[in-house]
Amino acid sequence: MPRTRVHNLFVSSDGFAAGDRVTMEHPIGGAEALFGKFDGRVIHGVHGIDEPVTVDRALFSMWGQGVGAEIMGRRKYGPQTGEWPDDGWQGWWGDTPPFGTPVFILTHHPRESIEFANGTSFHFVDASPEDALRLAQEAAGGLDVRIGGGPSTVGEFLRADLVDFLHLAIVPIVLGTGVRIWDHLAGLEDRFTVESIGTSSGLTHQLWNRHHAQ
Amino acid sequence: MPRTRVHNLFVSSDGFAAGDRVTMEHPIGGAEALFGKFDGRVIHGVHGIDEPVTVDRALFSMWGQGVGAEIMGRRKYGPQTGEWPDDGWQGWWGDTPPFGTPVFILTHHPRESIEFANGTSFHFVDASPEDALRLAQEAAGGLDVRIGGGPSTVGEFLRADLVDFLHLAIVPIVLGTGVRIWDHLAGLEDRFTVESIGTSSGLTHQLWNRHHAQ
Repeated sequence: MPRTRVHNLFVSSDGFAAGDRVTMEHPIGGAEALFGKFDGRVIHGVHGIDEPVTVDRALFSMWGQGVGAEIMGRRKYGPQTGEWPDDGWQGWWGDTPPFGTPVFILTHHPRESIEFANGTSFHFVDASPEDALRLAQEAAGGLDVRIGGGPSTVGEFLRADLVDFLHLAIVPIVLGTGVRIWDHLAGLEDRFTVESIGTSSGLTHQLWNRHHAQ
Repeated sequence: MPRTRVHNLFVSSDGFAAGDRVTMEHPIGGAEALFGKFDGRVIHGVHGIDEPVTVDRALFSMWGQGVGAEIMGRRKYGPQTGEWPDDGWQGWWGDTPPFGTPVFILTHHPRESIEFANGTSFHFVDASPEDALRLAQEAAGGLDVRIGGGPSTVGEFLRADLVDFLHLAIVPIVLGTGVRIWDHLAGLEDRFTVESIGTSSGLTHQLWNRHHAQ
């Protein structure tokens, strides 16, 4: 009954959902333009911001609803590759990562977990999508699990048919390079019902709901 | 900074947002057809339901986000009029009213408050919109206040210019009779920026954001 959900995945007209060179200066790998329409303050709800409550913001605010754990790829967590350097890195988010739940980071180099006072904890696991999802579901205590990205990780979970709900925001820009979301997913629409709406910002939101298993 | 918000106000094509004869059998006064597209289970979020996460449901789920108190009209609370009969009435919602916050019920016949284990409490006040809002804001502890309806109450707060955000769902049905939402509000749009979108269900959602006071 709990779902595995993807939210606020921004995709360019040409199908890129991140840049390809994540560095300390460019957490989105050079594709920061994707997020021009995104107000991250609303991921915990449309209250508490001094900006209009738009349809975009309403849809972004689903992000945290009833989510008890996240799974993310290592490239979302930091720019390092290979063995972890002894650099004290705790992610991009400072002392108060916005997750508020356990987060499982997929890496071939497991390391010690990190806990924050706001309920966020980072756990580093070398696991298949299926095994990582099982760990996350146990940690989520009956709530939903969010696949937090980046696009390579979302693609892996889509190919393994582990995603129940996918919310994309199609951004009318052309990036030309980056990490593709649609590779090796031909026919994906056969497994989902898709609803699309355009909003006044120029974004197109797509809500993909997986057909129930028969 | 906290907002006064209206959510999920369903309005027929001809402008009726409730029926005009609330009885024990007809809580919406005969206009129950308005709510054919409404899934009340999502007001606390799009998780925990075994149905697709649609744009409609995503927008309905804003209802409880960051809301610390509600104000409702007496006709939403129950079918009684005049002095309260000694009938043990505690509202339509049984032991677990969905609000989870203090709720202020506007009535010319104040009575004792009622508290529930789930954080909901009902307070009966004979007050102007301004005074009721002040009470609700104090109780909301810095969170937003929701004007919960019915349409007469929402209209009063709109005429007093106390509403910062209004979410309507326009339902493509013609009721012919009921409680109108648009009476005595000519030019309302001058005070707001309005965004409209249609969804695949046939609903049109309107998000009205009041211009900031200069």
